[in-house]
Formats: sequence, C-alpha cells, structure tokens
Amino acid sequence: MDFFYANLIYLIPVLGIVGLIAMGIKSAWVVKQDAGDGEMTTLAGYIADGAMAFLRAEWKILGFFVVIAGILLGWSGMTVHTSSPIIALSFVCGAFLSAFAGFIGMRIATKANVRTTQAARTSLAKALKVSFTGGTVMGLGVAGLAIIGLGSLFIVFYTMYVTSKGESVNGEAMAKALDVLAGFSLGAESIALFARVGGGIYTKAADVGADLVGKVEAGIPEDDVRNPATIADNVGDNVGDVAGMGADLFGSYVATMLATMVLGREIVSPDKFGGIAPVLLPMVIAGLGLVFSIVGAAFVKISNENSSVQKALNLGNWMSIVLTAIATFFIVQWMLPDNYTFHMLRDEDANHVIKEGSLVFTKSGVFASIVVGLVVGTLMSIITEYYTAMGKRPVLSIIRQSSTGHATNIIGGLAVGMESTVLPILVLAAGIYGSYHFAGLYGVAIAAAGMMATTAMQLAIDAFGPIADNAGGIAEMSRLPEEVRHRTDNLDAVGNTTAATGKGFAIASAALTSLALFAAFVGVAGIEHIDIYKADVLAGLFVGGMIPFIFSALCISAVGRAAMAMVEEVRRQFREIPGIMEYKAKPEYEKCVAISTKASIREMVAPGLIALITPIIIGFAFGPEVLGGLLAGVTVSGVLMGIFQSNAGGAWDNAKKSFEKGVVINGETYYKKSEPHKASVTGDTVGDPFKDTSGPSMNILIKLMSIVSLVIAPHLHKDLNHNPRLQRQIEERSMVAPAKTISKKI
Amino acid sequence: MDFFYANLIYLIPVLGIVGLIAMGIKSAWVVKQDAGDGEMTTLAGYIADGAMAFLRAEWKILGFFVVIAGILLGWSGMTVHTSSPIIALSFVCGAFLSAFAGFIGMRIATKANVRTTQAARTSLAKALKVSFTGGTVMGLGVAGLAIIGLGSLFIVFYTMYVTSKGESVNGEAMAKALDVLAGFSLGAESIALFARVGGGIYTKAADVGADLVGKVEAGIPEDDVRNPATIADNVGDNVGDVAGMGADLFGSYVATMLATMVLGREIVSPDKFGGIAPVLLPMVIAGLGLVFSIVGAAFVKISNENSSVQKALNLGNWMSIVLTAIATFFIVQWMLPDNYTFHMLRDEDANHVIKEGSLVFTKSGVFASIVVGLVVGTLMSIITEYYTAMGKRPVLSIIRQSSTGHATNIIGGLAVGMESTVLPILVLAAGIYGSYHFAGLYGVAIAAAGMMATTAMQLAIDAFGPIADNAGGIAEMSRLPEEVRHRTDNLDAVGNTTAATGKGFAIASAALTSLALFAAFVGVAGIEHIDIYKADVLAGLFVGGMIPFIFSALCISAVGRAAMAMVEEVRRQFREIPGIMEYKAKPEYEKCVAISTKASIREMVAPGLIALITPIIIGFAFGPEVLGGLLAGVTVSGVLMGIFQSNAGGAWDNAKKSFEKGVVINGETYYKKSEPHKASVTGDTVGDPFKDTSGPSMNILIKLMSIVSLVIAPHLHKDLNHNPRLQRQIEERSMVAPAKTISKKI
Repeated sequence: MDFFYANLIYLIPVLGIVGLIAMGIKSAWVVKQDAGDGEMTTLAGYIADGAMAFLRAEWKILGFFVVIAGILLGWSGMTVHTSSPIIALSFVCGAFLSAFAGFIGMRIATKANVRTTQAARTSLAKALKVSFTGGTVMGLGVAGLAIIGLGSLFIVFYTMYVTSKGESVNGEAMAKALDVLAGFSLGAESIALFARVGGGIYTKAADVGADLVGKVEAGIPEDDVRNPATIADNVGDNVGDVAGMGADLFGSYVATMLATMVLGREIVSPDKFGGIAPVLLPMVIAGLGLVFSIVGAAFVKISNENSSVQKALNLGNWMSIVLTAIATFFIVQWMLPDNYTFHMLRDEDANHVIKEGSLVFTKSGVFASIVVGLVVGTLMSIITEYYTAMGKRPVLSIIRQSSTGHATNIIGGLAVGMESTVLPILVLAAGIYGSYHFAGLYGVAIAAAGMMATTAMQLAIDAFGPIADNAGGIAEMSRLPEEVRHRTDNLDAVGNTTAATGKGFAIASAALTSLALFAAFVGVAGIEHIDIYKADVLAGLFVGGMIPFIFSALCISAVGRAAMAMVEEVRRQFREIPGIMEYKAKPEYEKCVAISTKASIREMVAPGLIALITPIIIGFAFGPEVLGGLLAGVTVSGVLMGIFQSNAGGAWDNAKKSFEKGVVINGETYYKKSEPHKASVTGDTVGDPFKDTSGPSMNILIKLMSIVSLVIAPHLHKDLNHNPRLQRQIEERSMVAPAKTISKKI
Repeated sequence: MDFFYANLIYLIPVLGIVGLIAMGIKSAWVVKQDAGDGEMTTLAGYIADGAMAFLRAEWKILGFFVVIAGILLGWSGMTVHTSSPIIALSFVCGAFLSAFAGFIGMRIATKANVRTTQAARTSLAKALKVSFTGGTVMGLGVAGLAIIGLGSLFIVFYTMYVTSKGESVNGEAMAKALDVLAGFSLGAESIALFARVGGGIYTKAADVGADLVGKVEAGIPEDDVRNPATIADNVGDNVGDVAGMGADLFGSYVATMLATMVLGREIVSPDKFGGIAPVLLPMVIAGLGLVFSIVGAAFVKISNENSSVQKALNLGNWMSIVLTAIATFFIVQWMLPDNYTFHMLRDEDANHVIKEGSLVFTKSGVFASIVVGLVVGTLMSIITEYYTAMGKRPVLSIIRQSSTGHATNIIGGLAVGMESTVLPILVLAAGIYGSYHFAGLYGVAIAAAGMMATTAMQLAIDAFGPIADNAGGIAEMSRLPEEVRHRTDNLDAVGNTTAATGKGFAIASAALTSLALFAAFVGVAGIEHIDIYKADVLAGLFVGGMIPFIFSALCISAVGRAAMAMVEEVRRQFREIPGIMEYKAKPEYEKCVAISTKASIREMVAPGLIALITPIIIGFAFGPEVLGGLLAGVTVSGVLMGIFQSNAGGAWDNAKKSFEKGVVINGETYYKKSEPHKASVTGDTVGDPFKDTSGPSMNILIKLMSIVSLVIAPHLHKDLNHNPRLQRQIEERSMVAPAKTISKKI
C-alpha cells in the first residue's frame, strides 16, 4: 500500500499506456483481417484518401492557428504572475494529442470499414466483431492519449511549481500549475471545435448534395457508385461521426478532469498522497474507467445471425459502467479523508451551510455525486432514444403529420425537438442540485468526471456506427450480394440508435463539463458572486444566450451553401461526363471530395472565432462577473439548442426510415415514394444539419467558451498581485477546529 | 402651478378619460360610414358573429379562472401581512378592463373592416382613413382604460393605506399599496395570455386549414366565399391580430407602469408631490403619450391614389413619439428633484458606484433613460423590418434557397430566424446597460415606460393591418371590382410591414417590461443577490430556459392538431354539400368557426397553466433566489425564441409573397405555381404558427411569469415580519448627508 501512496501519481499515465497497448493489439487484429477483392479495396482506398485529404487540409489551417494562439498564450503568460509562458507548451501538447487521436480514429475507421464488409460476407457475428473492434481502437486511443497527456503534464508542472519549491499543495503555486495545465484542455478543445464543426459541415454538405441530385433528380439509390458525391458522402461519415465525435469527447474528457482538479485544489486533505488526493481522484477514476472499458469490450459479441446486436452492445456498456462504479467506490474510500473542508464556499454560503450541517463533506458524499453523474448520463441517453426511436410516440406523431404535407412534417419535427428539451433539462437540473448537495462544487465536477469515466467504451459504441455505415456503403457500391447488405444494414440500424444515444451522452457530458469549468472559472477569477440582478451581468446573460443562435445559423447556412456547390458539381459531371449512368465512365470523385473539404475548412472559421474571441472581449472589457453571466447564458441556451436540434434531426431521420418498412396512417399503408414519404424526406434533409452539424457543435461551443474563460481568468483577477480569497483561505485553514466539524450523512 | 402640485394624482385618470372621449368620437365616425350592399354586410355579419362567438366562449372559461384565481389571491392576501385580500378586487378590475379593451377592439374592427371595403370603392385615401381610424379606436381604448384603471386604483390604495393613516410614502404602507396594485397587472396579463395564445391558435388553425384544402387541394384563391373555412380565417385576423395584440400591449403598458412605480417608491424625493413624484412619473408619461397619440393620428392621411401609406403612418408615429419625448423632458424637469438617492442599491454596489460618482442620480439621467427606451424600441422595429422585408438580403436568401426544394427553403428560413436574434439582443443588452448606467434600476423601468408611452399610436398602426386584411377578404368574397381589391391589397401590404415592426416593438416592450418586473420582484422579495454561481439558482436558470421551448412546442402542436381538424371538416363539406363549388350552396361557415373556437379554448389551457403555476411552485419550494434564476432563464430564452420564431415566420411569409410579382433566381424568373414557389408555400405554412402563435406568445409568457412572481414575492420574503432592507433604508435615510452627494452629469 505504501508503494501506491507514494507512486499513485505515476500510475496514472501507466493506466493510459495500458490503454494504448490494448489499442495496438486490437488495431493489429483489425488490419490483419481480409480486406476483400479489388473493387472493394479500390473504393475503400478512395474513402481513405478522401479522409486523409481532409485531415491534411484541416491540419494546415490548424497549424497556423496553433502557432499563433500558442505565441499569444505564451506572451500573455509572461505578462501576469499567475500564469506562465509554459502554458503555450501545454496548449500545443493538447492540440497535438487531440489531432493525433483523430488521426488514429480516422485511420482505423477507414481500415475497418472495408474489412467489415468482407466479414459480412461470412456472418453477422464476424462483421460486428470487426466493426466494434475498430470502434474500440478509436475509444482506447482517445482515452489513452488523454490520460497520458494530462497525467504526465500534471507530474511535470506539479514537480516544477510545487514540490521542487516546497510550496503548499493548496496554495498559489498549485493554482499556477493547474492554470498552466488548463492550456492542455484549451488545446484539445480548440482542435475539437474545428473537427466537430468542420467535420459536421463536411459530412452534411456531401450527404445533402449527394441525396438532392442522386436520389431525387437522377433516381439512383444511396451509395450508388455512379454518384460523383458518394465517396465524399462516405468520407463524411468518417470525418464527422468518427473524428468529430472523437475530438468532442476527447475535449470533454480532459476538461472534466481538469475542472475537477482545479476545484480539488481547494479541498484541504492533508493526510494522504501529499494532500492532493482530491486533485488526483478524477484522473484515477478515468484510468479505472479505461481499464474496465477494455474488460467491457470483451463482452460485446453475438453467437448467430439472429442475436441482438443492441443487446450485445448494452451488455458491454453496462459491464464497464458497473465495474467502474464499484471500483470507484473503493478508490474513493481509500483515497479521500473521511471528512473534508471545502474552501471555495463564500462566507454567506458557509454560514448557510453550517446550519444545515454540511460545511464538511464526506467521502460518501463524493461517491454519491459520482453516482449522480452516472445516472444523469444514463437517463439522458434513454430520453434521447425515446425521442428519436422508431415506433415511439414522438416519431409516430411526425409520421402522422407527414400525411398532410411537407409543412406539417416540419412543424411536427420542430415541436418534437422543442418538447424533447423538457426531460433532459429536468434531469440535468436535478443532477446539478443533487451533486452539489452531496459534495458541493467539487461534487458537480466529479459527477461529470464519473459520467465521463467510461469514455473509451462510449466512443467504441459510437464509432462502430459510422464504420458499419461505411461498410454498407462499400457493399452497395461494390454491388455485393443482398445478404451482405442485409447484415451491414442490421449493424447500421443499431448504429443509428447508438448515434442518437451517443449524442445524448455527449451533450450531457458537455453540459456538466461546462458547469464544472464554470465553477473553476469563478474560483480562479477571484469573484464571489455572479449576480444577475446587476444590469451588466444580465446584459451578459442575454448576449451569451444569443451566441448559440448565431452559431447554429452559421453552421446551418454553411451546410446549405456547401450543399448547393456540391449539387452543381454533381449536375455538371452527369452532364459533361458521358457514360456515368451506364457504369462506363468513372465519376470524378475527388472533385466532390475537394468541394466538401474546402467548404468545411472555410466555413468553420467564423463560428470558431466567435467561440474563441467573445469570452476574451467580454472578459477584458467588462470584467469576470459579466463574463460569468455570458457563460451561463451560453451554457443554458447552448444545451437547449443542442438538444432541440439533435433530437428534432434524429426524429425526422427515423420518421423517414419508418417508411422503408411501410407505415399506417389513418388505416392506409404508405411506403417509399408515396407523398407522405416525400414529405418525410424533406424533414430528414432539414434535420441533417440540425443533428450532425449545428446540434452537436453546441457541445464544443459551450465547453470551449468556458475553457477560454478559465484560461484567461487569472488575467481578469481584480487584483493581480493579491488574491484576497486565497489569502483568506490560508488564514482560515488554521482556524478550522475539529469541534466545528459536523459530519454529514447521505 | 400649486394646483397641479396638489392634484396631479387626479389628473392621471382624467388624461385617460380624454383618451376615451376621443375614442368615442372616432368610433361614432366609423360606425356612421357606409357599410356597403347586402352581400358585403352579410359576410361582415358572419365575421362579427364569429368574433363575438369566440369572445363569449373565451369569457366563459376566463370567468371561471378569474373567480377561482381571485378567491385564491384574496385568501392568500389575508394570510400575510404584506398583502391584502383587496388584491383580489384589483385583480378582477385588471382582468375586466383587459377583456373590455379586447371587446372594444374586436367590435370596432368588425365594423371598420366592411366600411373600409366600401370606402375602397371610392378612393385609397378614404379606405386608409376608415381603417386607420378603426385602429385608433382600438389604441385609444386600450391606453385609456389602462390609465383610468391603474390611475384610479392607485388613488384608492394610496389613500387607503398611506395618506389616511399618515404613513411614510417610502415605507411599508406604500409597499403594501403597490403590492395590491400589482393584482391589477396580474389580472390584465392573465387575460392577455389567453387572448394571445388562444387567439394565436384560433387564427392559425383557420388560416392553415383554409389554405391546405382551399388553395392546395381545391385550387380556389384565398378568401374565396366557397371555402367553408374562409369566415373562420377572417375571424381569426380579428381574434389573433386585433384582440390578441391589444391584450398583449395592454398588459405590457400596465406592467411597465407598475414596475416603475414599485421601483420609484425606493427613491427618496421629499420635496414635491408629497414625495411620490417618481411613483407618479410613469403614469404621467403614459398620459402624455396618450394625448400625443391623438395628435399624431391626425397626421395619418394621404392625398391621392399614389401617395405612400407607409409614409403617412410613419409621420403620425414620429409626431407622437417626438412630441411625447419633448413633453417628457419638461415633465421630468418639473416633477423630479435635481438629485435623488436610490436605496435599492446593495452595499457593494453602493461602494462601487460611489467611486464612480453616481450613487445619486439626476433628473437628466432619468430623461436619458427614457430616451434609451425610445431608441431601443425604434431600433428593434427597424431591425425586425430588415429581417422580414421583401427585397432585403434575408428574404432574398430564402427565395434563392427555394429553388433547390422544400428542405432548403426551411433551412434558409430557420437560419435567418436564428441570425435575426443577434442585433436585437445587442440593442437590448446595450439598452439595459445604458438605462441602468443613467438612472439605476429605476432607469431600466422608466426606459420601458418611455418606450410604451405611445402605445395608443403603436396599436392604432398595428390594428389597422388586420382591418385592411379583412377588408380585402370581404372584397374578394363579395367579388367586387379589381380596383377595390387593388386598393385593399395596397393597405394590406403596408399592414404586413407594420405587423412585423409591431412584433419587434411588442417583444422589445415585453423584454424591458419583464426586466423592470424582475427588478421590482427582487426588491419586494427582499433578496440581495441572484447568484447563478449557486447550484440551485443555476438549476433554476436551466429550467427557466427550457420553459419557452415547451411552451412553443405546445402552441405549435396545438395549431397542427386544430388545423388537421379544420382540414377534415372542409373536406367533409366539399364532399357532402353539393353545389358549393358552383356557388349554388352556402358552406356551413359556423362549423369551421366552432372548430377554431373550441380548439383554441381547449389548447390554451396547458401552456397557460405552465406560465401561471411554475413560478408559484418554484418560489415556494426553493425560495425567491431560485425563482429569480428561473425568471432570468425564462426571459432570456423567451426573448430569443420570440425573435427567432417571429422573424423566421415573417421572412418565410414575404419570401412566398415575393413570387406573386415574380422573382429571379440564377437568371430565370419564377412566378406563382412554379416549383420554387411551392417550396416557399411550405415555408410560409411552417412560419404561420411561428410568427402568429408561438412567437408572440413568448411576450406574454415572460411578462406573466414575472408578474406572478412579483405578486407572490411578499409571501416568499424570508422574514415576513421584518424586512431588513427596508429597515436599513429607514436608518440610512437620515445619514445621507448632502456632503456625500456627488452630482452626475450625462
């Protein structure tokens, strides 16, 4: 035990390395599988090339951004004593690892897709194994790199600023170490913004463009090899759903850990681990979650063609969650002191809370908060599934309203999307209330960390979907036998459900992460309240609430513009290249790929700058409290718009899909090509940018604005040379007499 | 002058009576006009009967509601010392006067419509005169009744609680008088909720239902006498656009005055008007605005067929605004002391503000705040017009996106709506910031009061639109000569613009009103902060932000359901009544009227209860600070959703209308019945409930929730028998030494 006490801090990156080793083994297994015959590999090659072309183009512009932002960060770090130029290094590491995780995911996805198609020629079980293993590689890569990066940088900064100088672990030196570490999270989240927004624009421009000309005008099926935009469409699945989602969760994962660490510093925990147990805890939980994700992944398998793929995924998911929860219980018991004092409470709170007997939180309270986080994440996924699943009331109502035309289909979908915000918000509000009740602001943050612990598993399940989707596309393009397409369709259908629940999880995680970052920001900025009764703070709240609307508008219009360009290119190729329709001439796939790539890179700049620059302007012009109001507005409005758009899009999508098997409206059965089906296609097309571009990019928006605020917080501090709150803490510390300690039971 | 000093309080209701007298004269003039031949009066009779049938049905359910709510209010008033059972009387007065104002508006509108048609047989100038005079009757009725009601009740309560007992005008007795007066505003706003939401559902159910079968399926023009739903559609214009808008502005008008009075009580102004000048000021400004609205109305006239109707309306509007602003300048100079001390500032604010030299506000500051309010209102109208006007970028972008189908038209409209939130929110935020800067929270409230001063004129311009619309409908149904329809179309087109700008004004007024009420609520509830850094307040903010989404979802689905019922009834009549199409049989108009009436009454209950009950539950379960968080969330999210939905709807509407004259897309000209036009009809149909049901009902939602909170605020007071803030004020009052007075220049 003594060994662990002394070396726990070094164990964290080791857990990350374990994850990467497992990843390497699984990756090697996938690559070893049969990739099929000539045409399949050719098509898969186009997709892989297109995906890499996007990454290269993205990296080029991101390279500029990282260098400029890094220089600015380093320079500003030098100008205030609370930060350091080393934050620039931290930032670059975060950006690099996030980009590298995206590369790993994209690479394995473009290898696993064609191998899944080939496996589907044999059996469903084999196809699931290949596609899910591909997803696992992505999940383990993201989680492993995040833990290694954050864990090792923490060791470096902790040694550099605190232990090597004999500074207090609750004092300003530690605050500085964590400020610098925040650069890592900023780097990761910046890359995530461009990956999510750019990827979202890419995938929907290609998808909408391919559908509008291919399906509607030329009357050829989806994923038809004759459609010039079909390769771009399949690349889009990888760019948006694999790399975009991966970067999103990489960012959430890192940010929750970081925010919990910042809040954990304020906890006086003198007896174990050099007093930094509350700071280490979120990283340890993440490490455990990574290991149990590997364990859970082993349970994802089916025995025959009729087994339920969904059940297999659920089993693996629940195994990893339950095992992580159990392990976390013991870890919390072992690491934390019985009671701890939380210094971030303001005076009035302290008075208020002392009366209720909870100035001192307990380790049971911390564990209870983690459970709250797990419950919130699960409920959010279940609610999202209800609102977007086939055969449930919301989707059925849209189907019914498709019978009176395009307009009523749209009205139905918008109403479903708006209604679908109610339960998630109530769950989230209860989660905030509950986790705070159990363990204060640290509780809110650790709830988020608990929820994110099994990120590797969540991502494996998420990334499996687009791999299966691609596999189906390759099967269609290669005109493989019906049974192959049938198997990949089976996987793809499950993938649609996991995509919806994954979105619920992603937005819940983004919301809790932002709140944790928000709490950390308030602490670091040295403000005592964010009082919306003040006119300027209220004005900030309004402006913040508006940002998700303009951000969404920019994303949606970007898709519209890019899709129009795609439509024109596809029409041109049909017109100018004779023989495409008779399979005699090959379309110029690369031109469509180039259009999506260029458009997404160009269009992601404006929303990206809004997210990055607004908090800086507001913070420096109006001070930290107004910035706090802005953040609250962005978070509330962003979560609402995210849920609204994602769920409306998901519901429209499945309303359309329902027509494939035939739906009954007022006693009549309608199939594809019927008038109600056409109305449902309109809804699906509107829903595409909603659910895959603007909706999910809300996650990044709210997190990024919070992390930017956290990074600039020390600069906004009213009195840079004197932090009265920290001062008071140091004075108070000696006054916390055991007699005042009132234990709190849950 | 001495006479005025002593009797100003009695002059306020006199100004209201002046308004009502002017109304009577104008009303008699309208009724005296020729109502045309047999068929016209028959059709107008159907519309008038339908409108009254709706009012009767609405009043029946509202009667129940008012009695029950009144009893509850009276009972709860008895249980706390701060309120009184007399609040029930106040509530009933507010409800009755609001309903009565609605009746006046509806009655004159259903008389003016057919007389406008008849006048249009002669000249455009005559038609404008009749329709605008009808609108003026509505405007003067609403403003006159509001001023008389609020003014006289204030005299009663002021005498009863304060002067007859020799109590301080800044103390608790005055607070009680204003608490009781808040019941008046609650009554008015409750009726407004049902009028706006019920009216909004009515008008769009009829409109969408009439269009889907009449225009799309049967191929007959709008307002065709053969369409069974056409009378319901025309009734809807009166029910939604006249009565609904009137009740909305009646509510805003009363609520802004009340909120300013509540905040005015906190100002120590001992030298004039018995110390209540700041309390009287908003009512005096409203009275002046009413008088100058009468003056401005005289300028609305045109000389010949080619004169610009829009310019005539603008001239009248600007005359009333400028004259009111000038008069207000002198009134403020005359009524207010040079400097005044505002006691509602919290300690930290006071410290902060003393440093900047503005603890003491000046009368110039108050006037500056009023100017801010006028500027905000004007800018909001201009921005709204830009985003919804034909020929401007936003509408043109939707037209262009109509060329690629229904889906891209919808995406375009949604993007325009979202984008259109940016400028109004920046204007609003700047308005909050500016008015607070000039005169503190009283400044924010008086800015709203200044903006609302010319409500009579705004409503006259607003109500003119649906009267002209109805006049056109009657002309079409009576198959009058082309030139008549041409003249009414000219008026109707201007009416569409004024409807859009009126919505901008209504939402700006609702937003400022809610903020004023919010400030008053915080004061009355006796809380010092609303700190969103507290977990429970933040949870309240999230829940509050969600309410406009579920409210919108309920409104939109209600329209969808009611429209479906209407579609089925119209189809049934076409099927079962032979000879309709050949003008041989009369459709059963009353059945369609009954469907809209029943649906709107039934469907307005659920959203209404959400708005009324949520603040009560949250307030009593979690306390005033969490309720404050909830209100902030509702206000921010409600304003955003209101702007988004109203502007998207307006832009879709005008994109569709643009096709009537032909639009050029990529070098080709498209007219009605072209594919892009069909796509634009889809957008218009989606936009109908957006712009006329859910969008405008956001105004009522945010105001009503704030006023409910203000009314229950004394009950939520932490210590009912002791208000520490008031106590402190009384103590402080003697300490405000002239030496500390730092004058503030603007």
